[in-house]
Amino acid sequence: MKKFITFEGIEGSGKSTQIKLVAEYLSQKNVSLIVTQEPSGTEIGRKIGGILFDRKNNNMCEKTEMFLFCAARAQHVRDVIMPALKQGKIVLCDRFSDATYAYQGAGRGLDEKFIGLVNDYSSMLLKPDLTLLFDLPVEVGLQRANKRNDNLKESSSIDRFEKETLDFHKKIRAGYLRLLKNDPDRFCLIDANRDVNTIQNEVRQCISNFINLKI
Amino acid sequence: MKKFITFEGIEGSGKSTQIKLVAEYLSQKNVSLIVTQEPSGTEIGRKIGGILFDRKNNNMCEKTEMFLFCAARAQHVRDVIMPALKQGKIVLCDRFSDATYAYQGAGRGLDEKFIGLVNDYSSMLLKPDLTLLFDLPVEVGLQRANKRNDNLKESSSIDRFEKETLDFHKKIRAGYLRLLKNDPDRFCLIDANRDVNTIQNEVRQCISNFINLKI
Repeated sequence: MKKFITFEGIEGSGKSTQIKLVAEYLSQKNVSLIVTQEPSGTEIGRKIGGILFDRKNNNMCEKTEMFLFCAARAQHVRDVIMPALKQGKIVLCDRFSDATYAYQGAGRGLDEKFIGLVNDYSSMLLKPDLTLLFDLPVEVGLQRANKRNDNLKESSSIDRFEKETLDFHKKIRAGYLRLLKNDPDRFCLIDANRDVNTIQNEVRQCISNFINLKI
Repeated sequence: MKKFITFEGIEGSGKSTQIKLVAEYLSQKNVSLIVTQEPSGTEIGRKIGGILFDRKNNNMCEKTEMFLFCAARAQHVRDVIMPALKQGKIVLCDRFSDATYAYQGAGRGLDEKFIGLVNDYSSMLLKPDLTLLFDLPVEVGLQRANKRNDNLKESSSIDRFEKETLDFHKKIRAGYLRLLKNDPDRFCLIDANRDVNTIQNEVRQCISNFINLKI
């Protein structure tokens, strides 16, 4: 059975909210699962994430950024994702190797062939069985992300990626859509420019179909 | 003129002491130089080093370790080493890509071909012009490293690498000696099992010859 399901999308696409809601739903249906995320799915990954997202590191080299995500992924795959899959659990993962193509490839302009090599190596050749791509206009996504930060009443919660230019985020969106175009069987495109419940219904349907669960 | 000089060796080989002494000597001779080190040659590299050396991270995945060193190197080459070389300075660097072969390749058993790829990518294809390899029996090196830590009166100063098994360090020494065998023109083998002054004289001679400096 296919078990490894990833959630991808630009900032403010709502994937983190959706993954939480669908995990609750699936758990109620007695589906055995874990929810995890990149790069912070392990203790070491959380420390790496601390470097990656810290706005103080605004002069970070593009290659450094790519290697740090791969460093976190290697630990995550070995210690969290692979063991859960071996136990027969469904793994719902917030971002995975597609994000490296979209952010460091399309966004930062690093060589996509090289990204393919380090993605394969860091993930032990593990590929998602299903990827939900939450797509919406970049302007809407960034507005949502800003609103979320305002609600937290911490302007410092805007991270190194969120404070990037609109152009950078547009490249990432285009990068994600290219990935979908090249691998349409794996991807499920979700229009994320709708209300939470409508999107959640579609997410539930998509995943339930995939794992043969009756809604 | 050839300018990029690296210092390599196992724990307790005395290379950090030697690099400091020879830098002082060369500065007195009006040689324009910088001294730097991996992974801590940049602010971001120091943060990455904090994760790499922390004994709490004792379950770090081998691949994570390799990617973290490469992450630090990319930043270091772009921001410190390349600019100094472009200014015509001599760069004395405590560890560089050979250490990835020795530690993560020979020591941890990662694929050396893949290490070659990530080394090339993280270093922007920069190779040392001269590498001084400080070689001594592993037992002696570790004893020295322990003594240094005792002097600091901090048992917690023993890092994640120093606390590895004797066998691990023997593999690293063997790895370094293989690198030298495969590239004898670049390497200068220094018998590090001697007193500081005797070694320093040899280091001065080796570097002075290389940069055509009269001693």
